[in-house]
Amino acid sequence: MAWDATKLKDWQIAEEAEKNMPTVEELVEKLNLEKDELIPYGRTPKVDFLKMMERLKDKPDGKYIEVTAITPTPLGEGKTTTTLGLIEGLAKRGQNVGGAVRQPSGGPTMNIKGTAAGGGNALLIPMTEFSLGLTGDINDIMNAHNLCMVALNARMQHEANYTDEELAKRGLKRLDIDPKNVEMGWVIDYAAQGLRNIIIGIGGKKDGFQMQSKFGIAVGSELMAILAVAKDLPDLRERIGKIIVAYSKTGQPVTTRDLEVDGAMTAWMRNTINPTICYSAEGQPVMVHAGPFANIAIGQSSVIADRLGLKMFDYHVTESGFAADIGFEKFWNVKARLGGLKPNVSVLVATIRALKMHGGGPQVVPGRPLPEEYTKENLELVEKGCANLLHHLNIIKKSGIVPVVCVNGFYTDTEAEINLIKKIVREAGARCAHSDHWLNGGDGALELADAVMDACKEESQFKCLYPLEMPLRERVELIAKEVYGADGVDWAPEAEAKAKRFESDPYYADFSTMMVKTHLSLSHDPTLKGVPKGWRLPIRDVLVYGGAKFLCPMAGAISLMPGTGSDPAYRRIDVDTKTGKVMGLF
Amino acid sequence: MAWDATKLKDWQIAEEAEKNMPTVEELVEKLNLEKDELIPYGRTPKVDFLKMMERLKDKPDGKYIEVTAITPTPLGEGKTTTTLGLIEGLAKRGQNVGGAVRQPSGGPTMNIKGTAAGGGNALLIPMTEFSLGLTGDINDIMNAHNLCMVALNARMQHEANYTDEELAKRGLKRLDIDPKNVEMGWVIDYAAQGLRNIIIGIGGKKDGFQMQSKFGIAVGSELMAILAVAKDLPDLRERIGKIIVAYSKTGQPVTTRDLEVDGAMTAWMRNTINPTICYSAEGQPVMVHAGPFANIAIGQSSVIADRLGLKMFDYHVTESGFAADIGFEKFWNVKARLGGLKPNVSVLVATIRALKMHGGGPQVVPGRPLPEEYTKENLELVEKGCANLLHHLNIIKKSGIVPVVCVNGFYTDTEAEINLIKKIVREAGARCAHSDHWLNGGDGALELADAVMDACKEESQFKCLYPLEMPLRERVELIAKEVYGADGVDWAPEAEAKAKRFESDPYYADFSTMMVKTHLSLSHDPTLKGVPKGWRLPIRDVLVYGGAKFLCPMAGAISLMPGTGSDPAYRRIDVDTKTGKVMGLF
Repeated sequence: MAWDATKLKDWQIAEEAEKNMPTVEELVEKLNLEKDELIPYGRTPKVDFLKMMERLKDKPDGKYIEVTAITPTPLGEGKTTTTLGLIEGLAKRGQNVGGAVRQPSGGPTMNIKGTAAGGGNALLIPMTEFSLGLTGDINDIMNAHNLCMVALNARMQHEANYTDEELAKRGLKRLDIDPKNVEMGWVIDYAAQGLRNIIIGIGGKKDGFQMQSKFGIAVGSELMAILAVAKDLPDLRERIGKIIVAYSKTGQPVTTRDLEVDGAMTAWMRNTINPTICYSAEGQPVMVHAGPFANIAIGQSSVIADRLGLKMFDYHVTESGFAADIGFEKFWNVKARLGGLKPNVSVLVATIRALKMHGGGPQVVPGRPLPEEYTKENLELVEKGCANLLHHLNIIKKSGIVPVVCVNGFYTDTEAEINLIKKIVREAGARCAHSDHWLNGGDGALELADAVMDACKEESQFKCLYPLEMPLRERVELIAKEVYGADGVDWAPEAEAKAKRFESDPYYADFSTMMVKTHLSLSHDPTLKGVPKGWRLPIRDVLVYGGAKFLCPMAGAISLMPGTGSDPAYRRIDVDTKTGKVMGLF
Repeated sequence: MAWDATKLKDWQIAEEAEKNMPTVEELVEKLNLEKDELIPYGRTPKVDFLKMMERLKDKPDGKYIEVTAITPTPLGEGKTTTTLGLIEGLAKRGQNVGGAVRQPSGGPTMNIKGTAAGGGNALLIPMTEFSLGLTGDINDIMNAHNLCMVALNARMQHEANYTDEELAKRGLKRLDIDPKNVEMGWVIDYAAQGLRNIIIGIGGKKDGFQMQSKFGIAVGSELMAILAVAKDLPDLRERIGKIIVAYSKTGQPVTTRDLEVDGAMTAWMRNTINPTICYSAEGQPVMVHAGPFANIAIGQSSVIADRLGLKMFDYHVTESGFAADIGFEKFWNVKARLGGLKPNVSVLVATIRALKMHGGGPQVVPGRPLPEEYTKENLELVEKGCANLLHHLNIIKKSGIVPVVCVNGFYTDTEAEINLIKKIVREAGARCAHSDHWLNGGDGALELADAVMDACKEESQFKCLYPLEMPLRERVELIAKEVYGADGVDWAPEAEAKAKRFESDPYYADFSTMMVKTHLSLSHDPTLKGVPKGWRLPIRDVLVYGGAKFLCPMAGAISLMPGTGSDPAYRRIDVDTKTGKVMGLF
């Protein structure tokens, strides 16, 4: 039944699995949909959100399962793989199940980490479409975002070149934008470190306004955050008009609406509101919506996709980015709150590789072979590393969601290592399953599926960590101590001045707090593994997302634009010109 | 039958016309296609080029009609409108007809000129999809192109930071790229003048290689040129690997293949090879493929779309960009030659507005009301302006293609003005029709359709202006004199040195010559209207497109990145949040 994942590459398994992938017609029949609720785009239809939600709005919601992880190695610990394995396992148990994952960014796909399609017998198909742009949501976001930047720079040029009277002839009032106080940069969906800090507008007076500027990765755009939390199209439209692009010389916010570009930005994004349907390797429907990078962005599958999934399926499995300190914390206090969602179960994914790293194993470097500690049994490293797991388990417990720990199996795992983890987790009062979905698909994930179904019988005591009334600095203090395990927070003077301004301005009273922090440690320092003790969280800046309604404290030296390494994935990707098929994705 | 184009805006007519737009199933039946030859993408299917061409390869070609124009005003003279009107007119005459147009760029659509969807009752539907990204070809080109730039800058950084030994560990050999001799820039599909000249890589040693760089408009990418001239997928793949990105410090070309990024670029572009099917307002199929900007790019609908159209239709109407000196010249000597195509008829579009401008009328400025000369009868200006028309007519005659002049009707045209033009054209030995497709759709284009069908009975004497054996500078001299009407060519020393190098290197022997020149004058100076006399063509640089196999002499001060004006179209575009429909496109 399952393909031999030890011999075949992921793109080869995908090619085989795609031969049995449901057609749009089959999917309509299987899920009892109306034909016009799916809009075909090649092999991957989009769901017509407005139509389907209207028809199903009174149907009771299914069980809501979130998947998060312990602090990962730079290789990732198979959260998407586990999400897909769990879906396959629940289907093997005869359940009506589906899920939602995030669309991968061209940055990691073309760089070292590869596509985010899962792997082995728990991967997402069609893999090529999924990995390379899908139905264009990220491109739409990139185009909408950069249109705003074109409008900003052109407006600054015209204001520099024209008098007030000449501007008035064109129906324009001087915005008097401060070039030293611009909030937004441009975006591109790659890890393009060379575009992090740039100077633009070199040349004559018609060659744009000369100023320092920057590029971030497109999936980190505020527009992606808006897509993740928007409830519907009117909400999306309204948020797009409130994005703060820059400030005037007197410190007044200059928004997308002031630049008169918000309607056109929404026009570029009109199709993004409809999630795309892909499939697990065993044919269960999985919606793809919103984007990754829970360290520098919200990194959640969307509220819209989850609302749809809870209506369509009896079990809806969704994913948050990276580990429970960063991705789950945003799922808990930002996304679920804004979406009015009540999760039942959170699956905490761990690998023995990552536990060993947290237990003191040698550094794991992408592209280099793993040291021996990771390929041979080592109970001591595993036991020590479980401190990281238990810390994340406690984060989930604080949310009132029922946790299930999943050890995502690897062929080097030993029976003794697995049993040790199960013992430690059970002593901490949580369910624990070992799962072999990578090797065996749904048949390998039955233990996990059973544990999750059992956990769903418990009642979720879901509650947010803090009320929205809590002031910004108090919230950050609470997150730092209760979630990350810090002793406290150190604010850089400029960041604290900003925080005070936001706290005293009622406009920001209902803004969410979206932390920007590395995912590679519970702390802000990616080199500190396990459970760092005796440290304080440094906040160096606070970004404002006026449309998403987020204040984003930035912890440590993290960049909004990753870098491309010296042995990136694009070196190995190609197209078979006889068949048009893409080879070499992983 | 026709909608009242004097009262309704284009997007409103489109909305009405789209109610009768054929479904994919209806199109399959109407054109006798196999079901799997069309791949649905929302309302606009892509043609599976490989499958359809294989089935139809032995079918005789239909009649091949190209549409070009006289030197336009900055507003455009309705070449796309006439293309669609002609298709509608031929359909009214009971012919099996279709066509090919180019996908519009976000630059003009969001700037002053608006979308390139035609207008009135001769417009292209679905208008929103067509205007805003369609099935993603331009996004795919942008992503493929910028991946190459990411690879370039990352490689330069890693070569600066690593020794030869450290590079070798990663399987890399030093390319030693000269930062002062980089051929390619980045692309974005807007008129973003602020990105014309930039400095990138500011920051530390991991923040990219610091250097001067540039952005061009995405539709002007060499990848778009490759898409326009590629015969099939193997041809596309091979060309993508030969793009010259930069030069080493010893002057050796550094290609996409040297950067090991050509396979991944092809992967991003794998779907672009399939043209998208849209429709005229009256429901005839029109393929959309490749891009605009025949001044700075090739600006042709693709060889692939035309090959398909000639198999599918008895009359296939295709469009080249701007006027006959620049777009038609490339159609004639580049696209038709490379594609092995034999055009039958060229339609030369003129408006009375443009003729008056060439006859000495006041300047036409986008966004400002037209002076009285253009709205009232003025036979003198029309007669003088016909010199420009006759010049373009002569260009077409030199190609051996049978010309038909079309006066694209406007409500201010008078009977006397129309008759004057017809008299002048007929005295020059060519057919001439007045056409009211904007107002009346196909019924308004019957005179034009009849003239074109009649012209198709003549045998085309198609031949290129020059053989590929002719050296570069001789070719440019010939084009300047025979096509533009210049007295000669002045080479800037640097450009001439490059030209000599290309002439002496057999690698470039079969490269096409793709001129870069303003479309707003027969000369290089956009302010010179009519038929400029006593001038010489200045060539300041020669670009190399190693994959497209083009050498591109640049005439005058033209930029590869247009600018956004002070009253751009995006100010008026928005989305109806109840229906999701886009409003305000024009």
